[in-house]
Amino acid sequence: MKIIELTEDVSLTRDIETSTEKQRESVGAIINQVRQNGDKALKDLTEMYDGVRLENLFVTEEEIKEAYNHINQQTLESLRRASKNIQSFHERQTRQSWVTTNEDGTMLGQKITALDSAGVYVPGGKAAYPSTIMMNVIPAQVAGVRNIIMTSPPDREGKLAPAVLVTAAELGVTHILKAGGAQAVAALAYGTETVPSVDKITGPGNIFVALAKREVFGQVDIDMIAGPSEIVVLADNTARPDYVAADLLSQAEHDEMSSPVLVTTSKTLAENVQTEVEKQIAELPRKEIASASINDHGAIYTAAELDEAVEAVNQLAPEHLEIMTKNPYELLGKIRHAGAIFLGPLSAEPVGDYFAGPNHVLPTNGTARFSSPLNVDDFTKKSSIISYSQTAFERDAEDIAAIARLEGLEAHARSIEVRKKGEN
Amino acid sequence: MKIIELTEDVSLTRDIETSTEKQRESVGAIINQVRQNGDKALKDLTEMYDGVRLENLFVTEEEIKEAYNHINQQTLESLRRASKNIQSFHERQTRQSWVTTNEDGTMLGQKITALDSAGVYVPGGKAAYPSTIMMNVIPAQVAGVRNIIMTSPPDREGKLAPAVLVTAAELGVTHILKAGGAQAVAALAYGTETVPSVDKITGPGNIFVALAKREVFGQVDIDMIAGPSEIVVLADNTARPDYVAADLLSQAEHDEMSSPVLVTTSKTLAENVQTEVEKQIAELPRKEIASASINDHGAIYTAAELDEAVEAVNQLAPEHLEIMTKNPYELLGKIRHAGAIFLGPLSAEPVGDYFAGPNHVLPTNGTARFSSPLNVDDFTKKSSIISYSQTAFERDAEDIAAIARLEGLEAHARSIEVRKKGEN
Repeated sequence: MKIIELTEDVSLTRDIETSTEKQRESVGAIINQVRQNGDKALKDLTEMYDGVRLENLFVTEEEIKEAYNHINQQTLESLRRASKNIQSFHERQTRQSWVTTNEDGTMLGQKITALDSAGVYVPGGKAAYPSTIMMNVIPAQVAGVRNIIMTSPPDREGKLAPAVLVTAAELGVTHILKAGGAQAVAALAYGTETVPSVDKITGPGNIFVALAKREVFGQVDIDMIAGPSEIVVLADNTARPDYVAADLLSQAEHDEMSSPVLVTTSKTLAENVQTEVEKQIAELPRKEIASASINDHGAIYTAAELDEAVEAVNQLAPEHLEIMTKNPYELLGKIRHAGAIFLGPLSAEPVGDYFAGPNHVLPTNGTARFSSPLNVDDFTKKSSIISYSQTAFERDAEDIAAIARLEGLEAHARSIEVRKKGEN
Repeated sequence: MKIIELTEDVSLTRDIETSTEKQRESVGAIINQVRQNGDKALKDLTEMYDGVRLENLFVTEEEIKEAYNHINQQTLESLRRASKNIQSFHERQTRQSWVTTNEDGTMLGQKITALDSAGVYVPGGKAAYPSTIMMNVIPAQVAGVRNIIMTSPPDREGKLAPAVLVTAAELGVTHILKAGGAQAVAALAYGTETVPSVDKITGPGNIFVALAKREVFGQVDIDMIAGPSEIVVLADNTARPDYVAADLLSQAEHDEMSSPVLVTTSKTLAENVQTEVEKQIAELPRKEIASASINDHGAIYTAAELDEAVEAVNQLAPEHLEIMTKNPYELLGKIRHAGAIFLGPLSAEPVGDYFAGPNHVLPTNGTARFSSPLNVDDFTKKSSIISYSQTAFERDAEDIAAIARLEGLEAHARSIEVRKKGEN
């Protein structure tokens, strides 16, 4: 890993998967095909891309029962404990509708309503990602979304991974579509004969899923388009190099494009982490991926002072930030931009990825400047409430008509004045 | 206005301004030009599109002083009262960071932070829109955004409308760029020699502004892309036809593409509103626009029962909903989708457009199913806080490593296990 002295400007060498014109065209064509031919298109496209002709697009009760046979009891208990923590953290986020009732008789407020429905995309492939299911489904359930539908591409036998089915079933999600790619997104956005359309689609996916989400945005809401994963560790000389190295590598194993970065005030730590990374990386099963990430997008920045290091963190606006300094809590107020902030030597990133309770769907690619972790608010919306009384109306009518006329909107003014004339 | 008996499915004949390939190319080229040539590009493009060569891209103190000479004192007082109400309503929306501190020593929470900066686009043209400025700037200020920059296209003399300058100055916004269209959006998103880049761009604009916002989304955050305005009035036989007609017309005068809709349980009201609309429209200065809107996108739906009418409203998911029934309050719980809900005969839409306090930037085009009025949350973001204790770590380490391995991420498991070995 390169050790670089911190200068004024710092930025991650972010390497975003960019789409080609051909991919965009292909996604457009797939969406149109699903809109026009519904279930038939879904089956045709699944045959083409996933190599299996499905008779039934949905997972059956039998398949879910069968899946339980392939999960060991201890893992199941671990998933249940994780799920309980995630639920508990998200329940603290729920908000109430509110009104102000004024003495003049007016009532103003915000009504908070859950979305009617949500669709969760779960990637397929060799590994199963139960945590993706929990992190997307639980906030929607806590918000009060009544209809949740999950979708994931089947394997060549037309099956989904047991861990995926069991995790969904544990959360009470039984409406599971076997479809992936842009076709799954199109089905959720527009509906088919058997797939109900939803109000919002969340969950990670490959470039085709990302392009399709961007394309249907407006028809439905979407979560953010996730970029490669990032970690920044902010550490002083009290940090243990083996912990720091392990955490950088946990990020690096995700993807060749992941960015693992250390910002430290200690040159000694910088050098020791450099050594530890070499040592630990050699023993990793995914060492090729991790090496590419470390070499191409990893960096160790050394700062003269802690404040300078903190400012670099704010410039990077990382997805994950670990603070391993003498007193991490006193730095919290200075951190303006980070998706999740892990404080102290034991708050390793995987604690948050899987278990502690906060969401692991986090803003990447510097968007922590303006975006938030997935949360309960994302599955609710607000409506303004306005109730005006006679007293308030009479007091304010002239002001309102004056501003309407200043903006050249006469009918707006008249809608006020017709009421001044009337006996109410 | 057509009177139509309500059948099962109802939808607004929404007519969205769609962009052409040529417009998209043009916007892409403008954005590139501004990114490459900065201020020079801004000046060149302003000369080309607004017909004026600017020496100074920013409004000066003298121009603001001068603008006050063109505003009458009464209008100024009306604007100040509106601003006070808007500020007061938005202040009630502010949220606190929170943590849970558990007996096991863990601390979890959400840190709420204001965005560093925001840019507000204010359309130019003949009419000035002080309300746009108030509705976009005040939520950002209440959220705590430190740097707010406004932008609006200059007229052929290189000036902005006095009402725009005065409203901005009243709110304390003095950083005002003279630029419009895609070039203004590009400057705010990427910055130039003199224009600082911002984290979020809000405010309405024409198709070029909308396309540019969509294009820079991801680099910065944006508010929603607004469609044409909509009103749905839900009324029974207690409603006054002259009020209903005036409110439908206040929407209709905005734009030929606006949708003014009445849903009523009373056939008599339906007919009387039809007559009243004819009568009132004849006297409106913008009667051509209003007529086009009423004829092409207006409708009166009659329902057999109130519940059926309410369900139609939810299907329409209107931007503005007025409820003029015997007891509007008891319907509030049944309304699932609406941007703003106006209750009772005196809560005319312009009360909310300008004055009561809630925001007039509302979800259009059916997006009230999943979107909210512009609000203080839109100018903040959350960061998760995770602090794990020794006790909690030891208790949970095995669970966390188990889930990591289930997902095939060995380095995640090791980042936990390296800590189990260490003395902390």
